[in-house]
Amino acid sequence: MSVPVCVLGLGLIGGSVLRAAVAAGRDAWGYNRSGVAGAGGFEVGSDLSAALRRAAAEDALVVLAVPMTAVDPVLAAVAFEAPGCALTDVVSVKAAVARAVQRNGLSQRYVGGHPMAGTSESGWAASDARLFHGASWVVAADDGLDVTVWQRVARLALDCGAHVVPASAAEHDVAVARISHLPHVLAAVLAGVGGDGGQLALSLAAGSFRDGTRVAGTRPELIQAMCEANDAALLEAMDDAMARLSAARDALQSTGSLAAVVGEGHRARLRLDAQAHPAITGIDFSSAGVLAQLREAGRAGGVLRSL
Amino acid sequence: MSVPVCVLGLGLIGGSVLRAAVAAGRDAWGYNRSGVAGAGGFEVGSDLSAALRRAAAEDALVVLAVPMTAVDPVLAAVAFEAPGCALTDVVSVKAAVARAVQRNGLSQRYVGGHPMAGTSESGWAASDARLFHGASWVVAADDGLDVTVWQRVARLALDCGAHVVPASAAEHDVAVARISHLPHVLAAVLAGVGGDGGQLALSLAAGSFRDGTRVAGTRPELIQAMCEANDAALLEAMDDAMARLSAARDALQSTGSLAAVVGEGHRARLRLDAQAHPAITGIDFSSAGVLAQLREAGRAGGVLRSL
Repeated sequence: MSVPVCVLGLGLIGGSVLRAAVAAGRDAWGYNRSGVAGAGGFEVGSDLSAALRRAAAEDALVVLAVPMTAVDPVLAAVAFEAPGCALTDVVSVKAAVARAVQRNGLSQRYVGGHPMAGTSESGWAASDARLFHGASWVVAADDGLDVTVWQRVARLALDCGAHVVPASAAEHDVAVARISHLPHVLAAVLAGVGGDGGQLALSLAAGSFRDGTRVAGTRPELIQAMCEANDAALLEAMDDAMARLSAARDALQSTGSLAAVVGEGHRARLRLDAQAHPAITGIDFSSAGVLAQLREAGRAGGVLRSL
Repeated sequence: MSVPVCVLGLGLIGGSVLRAAVAAGRDAWGYNRSGVAGAGGFEVGSDLSAALRRAAAEDALVVLAVPMTAVDPVLAAVAFEAPGCALTDVVSVKAAVARAVQRNGLSQRYVGGHPMAGTSESGWAASDARLFHGASWVVAADDGLDVTVWQRVARLALDCGAHVVPASAAEHDVAVARISHLPHVLAAVLAGVGGDGGQLALSLAAGSFRDGTRVAGTRPELIQAMCEANDAALLEAMDDAMARLSAARDALQSTGSLAAVVGEGHRARLRLDAQAHPAITGIDFSSAGVLAQLREAGRAGGVLRSL
């Protein structure tokens, strides 16, 4: 299953996938619209068609790693040059990418992916073969997809040093709205409230404010592209946050106590620190219910550490 | 002005003040209700009256470092044993402590303080002479207070390695509501939303969620004591956050864009990273307007690095 890898888009994530695949001994090459400065021996170029023709000739796994706004034209090129290749992506929101894949008639050999790795820096220069070490990498496990492609995508994630979390595309999008997109919105809100406190407030800002606003330092267009593409799930997460904040406000005003919100938040944070991820083992990829079995295991916090 | 120092309460903050004062060559001793394990050569005991009688005899600066809930009884003992001593505190909320000081008839020689240093660990065992190095230490600069005491408190902060930020008690409380108390509430809210996403969401939690919820790991009673004592200012900060979150939600739903909230948050975070604190110099502590001058300098982001 260690097929060659063709990475389309060589920013932080795509560049890191290319480096990690090569480091794992995979035959891999990449395309970037503007090329890359300092390719350093990697096979990279700015000719999309050439990269895809090679993918088709060598039965490579094609990894879509361009920003959300460039997904459609790049998929059109894939459909033209390499429609039979196994296809995955490393773009944040799975439902939006799946719709674009379907528009371009590429659903049959597509399995979405999402490595949960940092994005506060960007570009090829920041990419790193070790970026995904120890990270979670979601591999979408919806019914009807090609289990052989699923295994190819999972193998790439494992080769990059990540562990695989199986989930449906919809479950993924709901989860990341809560643990990735909402944190970016709240960091922006908190930074705004603090900034309006003027120089004195910023003088007094210590750990809690610095940590709580760190991701507000990410480039706004990256935050927006990620969050806005997941608007439906993010709106629900924002409503949930507003309801909790409003209840906490009312409790503080009427009873003087923040016990409920602080206690619940503390218990949730302790669960995060204490979580042990059971290894998913004994999967029979030839069985009919394998995708449902994988989703179930992911829902229970399980991760796949080997194939 | 390097008078002896008597520290009442030897938790993380009080213990660190005692250690730092001794490290700076100051004559210093401490009281803790239950004593401390591993006093390691420090002069500490569980006899409050004895500690205060020594303070009165040696004209020490008394530093109130007990939790908010213990402030009143300890101040009653100060009023009985050492009413003439210069008095400060290192408790988070200045208006609430000032009211307790007034109830106990100790306002005349009191100048409030607040070192902005971490509190996610607690107790004497976690205390550290270097805890305040490079930190901001607010010294309240309200009209009517004793300028000699102000200088004693500022000297202690400088001896602990901190820089002094002058501010009125009310300005301090408004500022910390925004940059310390609101971050704790938002961290709890975010942890709650993420935790309700179940095991899958926690499996996918990466940097943005970990950073955004870090302080939710602090002991709930410490978070509550700090936030609830500043309820008026915190309610305003929570209202501000809710208004921003609500506006962002409506913009996302109606226009699909988070540009406003993300852009403003990004600019505020960049201001935090870029801030340069001008040194406050040339202060004439014998002039009539010195406290107003100090407050003005603090409001502009200035810090006092030497006396």
